[in-house]
Amino acid sequence: MRKFIASALRVESGVVRLLDQTRLPHEEIWLDAGPPEAMVRSIRALKVRGAPLIGVAAAASLAWQAEQGASDETLRDSAGRLRAARPTAVNLMAAMDRMLGALDQGRDALIAEAEALFDEDVALCEAIAAQGAPLIQDGEGLLTHCNTGSIATAGVGTALGVIRRAWESGKKLHVYVDETRPLLQGGRLTAWELRRLGVPCTLITDSMAALILRDGRASRVLVGADRVAANGDFANKVGTYGLAALARFHGAEFHAVLPRSTVDLGCPDGATIPIEQRDPDEVRGASGAFGSVRWAPEEVDVYNPAFDVTPAALLTSMVLDCGVLTAEQLAEGGLARALGAR
Amino acid sequence: MRKFIASALRVESGVVRLLDQTRLPHEEIWLDAGPPEAMVRSIRALKVRGAPLIGVAAAASLAWQAEQGASDETLRDSAGRLRAARPTAVNLMAAMDRMLGALDQGRDALIAEAEALFDEDVALCEAIAAQGAPLIQDGEGLLTHCNTGSIATAGVGTALGVIRRAWESGKKLHVYVDETRPLLQGGRLTAWELRRLGVPCTLITDSMAALILRDGRASRVLVGADRVAANGDFANKVGTYGLAALARFHGAEFHAVLPRSTVDLGCPDGATIPIEQRDPDEVRGASGAFGSVRWAPEEVDVYNPAFDVTPAALLTSMVLDCGVLTAEQLAEGGLARALGAR
Repeated sequence: MRKFIASALRVESGVVRLLDQTRLPHEEIWLDAGPPEAMVRSIRALKVRGAPLIGVAAAASLAWQAEQGASDETLRDSAGRLRAARPTAVNLMAAMDRMLGALDQGRDALIAEAEALFDEDVALCEAIAAQGAPLIQDGEGLLTHCNTGSIATAGVGTALGVIRRAWESGKKLHVYVDETRPLLQGGRLTAWELRRLGVPCTLITDSMAALILRDGRASRVLVGADRVAANGDFANKVGTYGLAALARFHGAEFHAVLPRSTVDLGCPDGATIPIEQRDPDEVRGASGAFGSVRWAPEEVDVYNPAFDVTPAALLTSMVLDCGVLTAEQLAEGGLARALGAR
Repeated sequence: MRKFIASALRVESGVVRLLDQTRLPHEEIWLDAGPPEAMVRSIRALKVRGAPLIGVAAAASLAWQAEQGASDETLRDSAGRLRAARPTAVNLMAAMDRMLGALDQGRDALIAEAEALFDEDVALCEAIAAQGAPLIQDGEGLLTHCNTGSIATAGVGTALGVIRRAWESGKKLHVYVDETRPLLQGGRLTAWELRRLGVPCTLITDSMAALILRDGRASRVLVGADRVAANGDFANKVGTYGLAALARFHGAEFHAVLPRSTVDLGCPDGATIPIEQRDPDEVRGASGAFGSVRWAPEEVDVYNPAFDVTPAALLTSMVLDCGVLTAEQLAEGGLARALGAR
C-alpha cells in the first residue's frame, strides 16, 4: 500500500495504525490495527469510528492482510467479519463489497482498491465542504452533534469539515457542541478538534440544545449520517432525531452532511435501516481513558440504541459531495438521480 | 421541634439530619445539618435538593438554631443566608419569609412555623397526587426528568408522587427516566427511587427522549418545577423546556406538577425568573460519590444553566394541590385565582 496520513489513520511502511479515539482527548495513542481481528475489535470498541473512516480503515486492514500473503479464502472470511463489525454503518459494507469485487481481479487490484477508497474519501470530504460551506452565513451560530471531523473520515470531515472550511474562508461563527451521551463523542472529540483548529465553540449537555435554538444562539444544525435510505431518511448518532424535531419546532435550518458512500439505495426508507443496540452499562455510567464510573443502580433497565432515524422531511437540505438536495428533492427521488449522475 | 421522618430529612431529639443525595444510590449517609452554615453548604452542594424539600429543610435548620438559643439578630442573618443559597427555588425564599414573620411573634412561633411547613408539604404532596393520579391512564407509558419524588419533598413527591399513587392504585404503567445531565438526578435518584418502589422503569439518556415520544413508548410527560410565574411559565431543571417542545411536536401530554408554595406571583412571567449558572466542570465531566471523571478538554468553554424556563402555553395542564389548570386557564390568570381561593 501507498503511504497515507490522515488524522486518525496512518498507513506507512506496511503498517496500519489507528489513533485510539477512546483515549482522546487525554492521550494520543496509536494502535497497530493491520490484522483484521485487531481492526474488528477496534471498530466494535469504537477505537476507530465515523462511518466514512471505518470503511477506509477496514479496507486498509484487508489490504494489509493481502500483503502478508493470506489466502483468498482467508481474505474473504476477514472481509465478512469486518463487514459485520458495525451493523448500521453502510460505508463499511460498501467498502468490503468493493474490496471483494477487486479481489476477483487479484491481489494488486485489492490493494489498489484500498488506496482508491482512501483517496476517494479525502476527495469526497473536500467536495462536501465545497458544497456545504456556502450555506453558512457570516456571524452565524451553529449546533452540532457527535463527531464528524477529520477523525471520523480520511479527510477533513463531513459536517465538521463544512464548518471548518467556512471558518477558514473567514466567516465568523460559533459552534455549540452537544456532548453526545452516552459515549461523549462531542464532549471528548469535537470539543478537542474544534479547539485545535481554533474555531470558537461552547460545550453543552444534549438537554440544552433546545435552549440554544430557542434563544437564537444557533440557527443552523449540521450533523453527519451513518446510513441514508433511498428516500433521504437517515440513521445517525442517537440524539439526532430529537435535534431535527427541535430545529423544526424552532424554525432553525437542519442539514445532514455526508459522502455518497453513506447512501444505501438498497434501503427504501428509514424503517429498513437496522439499529445497533449497545451495552446498557454505557448509560448506567461513563467509561473511557478518563476513568470509569457508574452512577445508576446496577440492575436498572436501560434503552441504548446507538443510532436513531430522522425522516428526510425534517431536513432543510442534505449536503452531499455531489450537490445539496432539499427535502422536496429527496422526496421526489433526488438521491438516486444525484448518485446516478456520478 | 416535633419529630419528623421524611425520606431525606429527619428531625429527631433536637437533631436535624439530611440524607446526602450526592452519595445516592451508592451510599445512604445522613449528615448533621442543624447549623444554618451546614445547611447552606448542603443546599449549595445539592446534598439536599428539590424545591419543596429545600424550603422545609432550611426552616428546620433555622428552628434548630433558635432552639440552641441564638439571638434574633443571628436568626435573621441566618435566614438571609439560607434564603440566598439557591437563587431559583422560590419555596426556599417563601419559607424563609414565613419564618421571619413568625420570629416577630417569638421563638415558639418560629419553631411552630417550621413544623407547619413540614406538615403542609406532606399534605400538599398528597393533595397533588390526588389531583394528578386520575390523569394517568391504565397501561400508559410516562416520561420524567430529574427527581421529583420523596427525596425532593417532605412527602411523597410531586410529579413522581403522582406516578407513585397512580401505580399504587393498580394502574399498569412504565416510566422512562431521563438521566438528567449534568448532575444525573434521574440516573442516580429517580432510577433508585422507582426501583425501591417496584415501579417498572427504564433509564435513558436525555437525547433519547424524542425517540420515546415519537415511538409512542411514552405519551405523557410529568415534571416538577422550581419556580412558577403568575402566568404559568415555570423554571425547572435544565432539559425541561426541550421536553416540553418535543411533547408538543409529538402530540404528547405534558404536565408540570407542583405545590402552591412553588408559585411566585411576584414574577409576572418566565422572563423575570432568575436562572442560576453553575460550575463549568459539571459539564466537562461527572462527579459524585461514584467517583470523579473529566472527559472534555480542560479549558473548553461551557454553558451550564441549572434551570430553563418553559412557557405555560406548552403545558397540557399544571397539576397543583388545589386543582388542575389547563394552558388556557393559566393564560387567563387562573393561577392567581386558584391560589387566592386557598
